[in-house]
Amino acid sequence: MTERKSIDLGDREAHVHQVAVIGAGSWGTAVAGLVARNADVTLWALESEIVSSVNERRMNDLFHPGVELPERVRATGDLAAAADGAQVIVLGVPTQFLRGVLRQVAGSIARQTPVVSLAKGIEVGSLMRPTEIISEVMADHDPTYVGVLAGPNLAKEVMTGKAAAAVVAFSEHEVAERLQPVFTSATFRVYTNDDVVGCELGGALKNVIAVAAGMARGLGHGQNFTGALLSRGLTEMCRIGLALGARAETFLGLSGQGDLVATCLSSDSRNHHLGYELARGRTLADITAETNMVAEGAKSVGGVVELAQRLGVRAPIAEMVRAVVVDGVTPAEAFEYMTAEPATHELSGILDARRVDAVT
Amino acid sequence: MTERKSIDLGDREAHVHQVAVIGAGSWGTAVAGLVARNADVTLWALESEIVSSVNERRMNDLFHPGVELPERVRATGDLAAAADGAQVIVLGVPTQFLRGVLRQVAGSIARQTPVVSLAKGIEVGSLMRPTEIISEVMADHDPTYVGVLAGPNLAKEVMTGKAAAAVVAFSEHEVAERLQPVFTSATFRVYTNDDVVGCELGGALKNVIAVAAGMARGLGHGQNFTGALLSRGLTEMCRIGLALGARAETFLGLSGQGDLVATCLSSDSRNHHLGYELARGRTLADITAETNMVAEGAKSVGGVVELAQRLGVRAPIAEMVRAVVVDGVTPAEAFEYMTAEPATHELSGILDARRVDAVT
Repeated sequence: MTERKSIDLGDREAHVHQVAVIGAGSWGTAVAGLVARNADVTLWALESEIVSSVNERRMNDLFHPGVELPERVRATGDLAAAADGAQVIVLGVPTQFLRGVLRQVAGSIARQTPVVSLAKGIEVGSLMRPTEIISEVMADHDPTYVGVLAGPNLAKEVMTGKAAAAVVAFSEHEVAERLQPVFTSATFRVYTNDDVVGCELGGALKNVIAVAAGMARGLGHGQNFTGALLSRGLTEMCRIGLALGARAETFLGLSGQGDLVATCLSSDSRNHHLGYELARGRTLADITAETNMVAEGAKSVGGVVELAQRLGVRAPIAEMVRAVVVDGVTPAEAFEYMTAEPATHELSGILDARRVDAVT
Repeated sequence: MTERKSIDLGDREAHVHQVAVIGAGSWGTAVAGLVARNADVTLWALESEIVSSVNERRMNDLFHPGVELPERVRATGDLAAAADGAQVIVLGVPTQFLRGVLRQVAGSIARQTPVVSLAKGIEVGSLMRPTEIISEVMADHDPTYVGVLAGPNLAKEVMTGKAAAAVVAFSEHEVAERLQPVFTSATFRVYTNDDVVGCELGGALKNVIAVAAGMARGLGHGQNFTGALLSRGLTEMCRIGLALGARAETFLGLSGQGDLVATCLSSDSRNHHLGYELARGRTLADITAETNMVAEGAKSVGGVVELAQRLGVRAPIAEMVRAVVVDGVTPAEAFEYMTAEPATHELSGILDARRVDAVT
């Protein structure tokens, strides 16, 4: 790869003028707002009140009350109509609902229309990543046109115009380059990558590490411990990624360390809060009842551990979080158990997986 | 590399019973305290008041007032006496003074005595890393016995017994494994690595990124921006590392992302404070006068930019910090200038440097 030549945004922009965003949750809506600076957007919402509030007042009352969307966003409750004429399909449907929604819309998407997944997670049961689900449901779709947009993107910040960056990843780098200007704006900087698996995994795995970071803070640990935990967490994410075909280097990037940092720093995040409260001695049931929702890290940790086991990859932090969240072990005990094993080469399971520069 | 067999700490521990720590600053003293749980430590201090306070009251009054050191730490003002009989030499001397101190003690260190550098930085003028200085001054020393201890280690936290982790790196992995138990304790977990350059560079480069993170916060940016900045910072560190022979993967580790996170999160750190205050409109002179010291990131940024230029590596964040700190550009202007360039493949300069999986 040579240094990229500068991109003529204006020129490329002209190529995409109609985009469908499927799913009007918190992040889907924010992305619709981003894309609408560059193209017309049809936003599909399951909830009829979102369709009407977007079309009547340019607001998503359910997820972003009071924040205005650009004029070029139009909402619809009709999936086929949303996809019709769209040159790019953005999938903002949560992982566990993705398969069902996709089945309804797949027939309306042409074989080489780029499909950009925003979903962060692993499907319960199948342990599949969103792009795997897409490729399975849309078996005829050209796989080089299935990719992701990922990175440190708290939806609320993006929706209110705070500056952020993300990465768009497609296995054919040229497809990613073509989509870069669709999402780019003065406050949203978009990098590219050609490692779809690596870029997709960061978002699926970071929540578990965020729960662990919350536990650490609840137990009174300091910044050194947080730094160590995030580093060990990042290598754990990388090991799982390598076993699935990702590149190690991608975890240095926006969807890896970038998203991990933004999630773990956010002391008001549900994952961090859950870990913190568990470490302070409260029960999962108690915390869940209070916040009226289960933190993503608690929901996904079982799948992450199962995936790691299936791949034969060590995942001590995920196992530790699972022991606390599922088995009711105390965070103090779980941390102690986790660190009872002797420390290894810090890139154990990474260098050997790459078969580069073998050690010892 | 196969999964490491578990280490018999007790057995290895027995091999090292006498360690010299050269330099009784904040971190050198904390490391002396760590090692003293496993071996006798002779701590060399330049300041006679440190020698007396350590020997009389087991405290370093200058750097850690009120915090007690283990009994096995003895201080001396005599460099040769400190090194005499030591099976391991730990160098806790700041980078800019390392050469001078080393010249005085080099003759007292046997050719295959492991030398562990704690210094984080690049020598002004020569742009050499601490281990390069060691190898130059101690030209006869076996280079496989020159390494580093690095990681997210705020000295004050370690000194007061808060849990932390670090990595000990020697080009011969067996040497690192041999030294692992010298530093390990119940609250200090030590990993190994065989990438000395990579482990050494994190500490030298992170302070510049921390200044930028402080600027971002001062300008009112949010967590997404911080996540993006730390990710772009980590890839920038990685590019410089690769040009110097480091491994990309090491930047996922404790000395890379781990130390970067701990430093950038620390809102009370001098680097973060400097960036924050600069962004709030204050001048470097003003901030320096108030805190009575120059933040490390401000001192080292010139050298980092020079090093990157010499290596032909892009370092936009370091250049941006330099423009603010040295040339007096405002942080807002500097950020704007930095992001005026179009975003590239996020691993640009990394994948091509590795000559692995070339893109486009």
